[in-house]
Amino acid sequence: MTHEVITSVQNPQIKRLHQLLERKGREGQGRFLIEGAHLVEEALKSGAEVLTILYDSERDMDTACRRALENHPQDVQVIAASSAVLAKLSETKTPQGIVAEVKKYQADWNEWLKARATASEDLLLLLLDEIQDPGNLGTILRTAEAAGVDGVVLGKGSVDLYNGKVMRSTMGALFRLPVFTRSLPDVADEWKAMGGSLLVSTLHEKSMAYDRVDYVPKTAIVIGNEGRGVSAAMIERADQLVHIPIYGQAESLNAAVAAGVFVYEAQRKRKE
Amino acid sequence: MTHEVITSVQNPQIKRLHQLLERKGREGQGRFLIEGAHLVEEALKSGAEVLTILYDSERDMDTACRRALENHPQDVQVIAASSAVLAKLSETKTPQGIVAEVKKYQADWNEWLKARATASEDLLLLLLDEIQDPGNLGTILRTAEAAGVDGVVLGKGSVDLYNGKVMRSTMGALFRLPVFTRSLPDVADEWKAMGGSLLVSTLHEKSMAYDRVDYVPKTAIVIGNEGRGVSAAMIERADQLVHIPIYGQAESLNAAVAAGVFVYEAQRKRKE
Repeated sequence: MTHEVITSVQNPQIKRLHQLLERKGREGQGRFLIEGAHLVEEALKSGAEVLTILYDSERDMDTACRRALENHPQDVQVIAASSAVLAKLSETKTPQGIVAEVKKYQADWNEWLKARATASEDLLLLLLDEIQDPGNLGTILRTAEAAGVDGVVLGKGSVDLYNGKVMRSTMGALFRLPVFTRSLPDVADEWKAMGGSLLVSTLHEKSMAYDRVDYVPKTAIVIGNEGRGVSAAMIERADQLVHIPIYGQAESLNAAVAAGVFVYEAQRKRKE
Repeated sequence: MTHEVITSVQNPQIKRLHQLLERKGREGQGRFLIEGAHLVEEALKSGAEVLTILYDSERDMDTACRRALENHPQDVQVIAASSAVLAKLSETKTPQGIVAEVKKYQADWNEWLKARATASEDLLLLLLDEIQDPGNLGTILRTAEAAGVDGVVLGKGSVDLYNGKVMRSTMGALFRLPVFTRSLPDVADEWKAMGGSLLVSTLHEKSMAYDRVDYVPKTAIVIGNEGRGVSAAMIERADQLVHIPIYGQAESLNAAVAAGVFVYEAQRKRKE
């Protein structure tokens, strides 16, 4: 653990970290930023590769974060910095006085799937087809982790998983849940090849009510884009089209609410 | 229908409308602003008291809005304005070129309740205890309307119902759903006095899983603040504490997702 104090927003390391606020910078560097004591603590405790922590030198580092840092096996560069520096790396109105730089990591999809292909237990996957709103994506990951979903796959054309607002909305779920970024039609084909069933959420006339569906043993649920719904490529591959009934005059449910209703119904049915 | 063109952000009417972007202004004037063609159309079609519509003179007014306006029984002041004026009244990054001023309206709670006290049908209410995030509140209202909830009561200390982000997240549900702003403990007492049961969402050890609860015939579900949960005054009044199980390591669900899982389970049980 090393200690420095940085007060200039022109510092080269700060300028490099600042690039992580943009998708291009995150993709170039293979790293991302998280903000706030709760997320930093979750990252440290989950064994994520935390490279750097910056905290506001005018405020103490959060106690729970400090404890998690002491128990963290890897070397983390800890930097005290001015409020101005923290503000430059913050995307929130009231900066929380702590940010961390984390290395991107995803488990290997093929290995992950292969390990589970032969297992006898139930599996529940959530496939997200071009979710655009970062708050929705983060809330879906938070919900999936809470509901005990086994994994989430993010299709192409989605909002960046490592977007700051996604991270804040997850409440740390990304660090505890396998999340993959893959071509969804490919994933659907691989999933079906190993005997998994594919439920696609859409308000199509042939769609079955979510509470009449069988969710066992290996089920993937596809949730579509906020405006356009699920793509034709995924609808084609569906074993069953499914929907949540709308009793009012609303055109649809919010994507995160729909995901929540689906995955909790799946778990309820499995435990019946 | 009158026509004017306004190009100055210093115009007194624009300055007055601009005050509606703040809670204080909305409370002083008893009016609020909505933004975007979809919301304006919903307001017009639902019979809300739309006082003024401003649209960007460099863009045509949305066709569906124009049609809804033609069928609207009341006189609406329609103003063509410059993009700069529209931007001044917008809270979004990409102004949608149309905003409307709407008069606040709430049905009378006591009358509403009395009319339903003697009815034999099931009733489902959602009581919101200090929901703070405008996106959450809007999404809860959207979900409640979609799920066929009969009414929503917003307790004291909540984010302002007429906040712009609440409005945008509702997708127009406020115009189709009875929403009341009341003291929640009073509402709970009145509800119970007419034989309604009160379910309070909390992860207390005596709390029952949401899918084991009986939701008929007259049920109110209380959803708490994002951080602190439900207030002691409401827990005291509960007929039953209820919760949605967390299978992962998350501390809680997002408030709008929790509301969605509860109300859809209530409807599922009622239709069994």
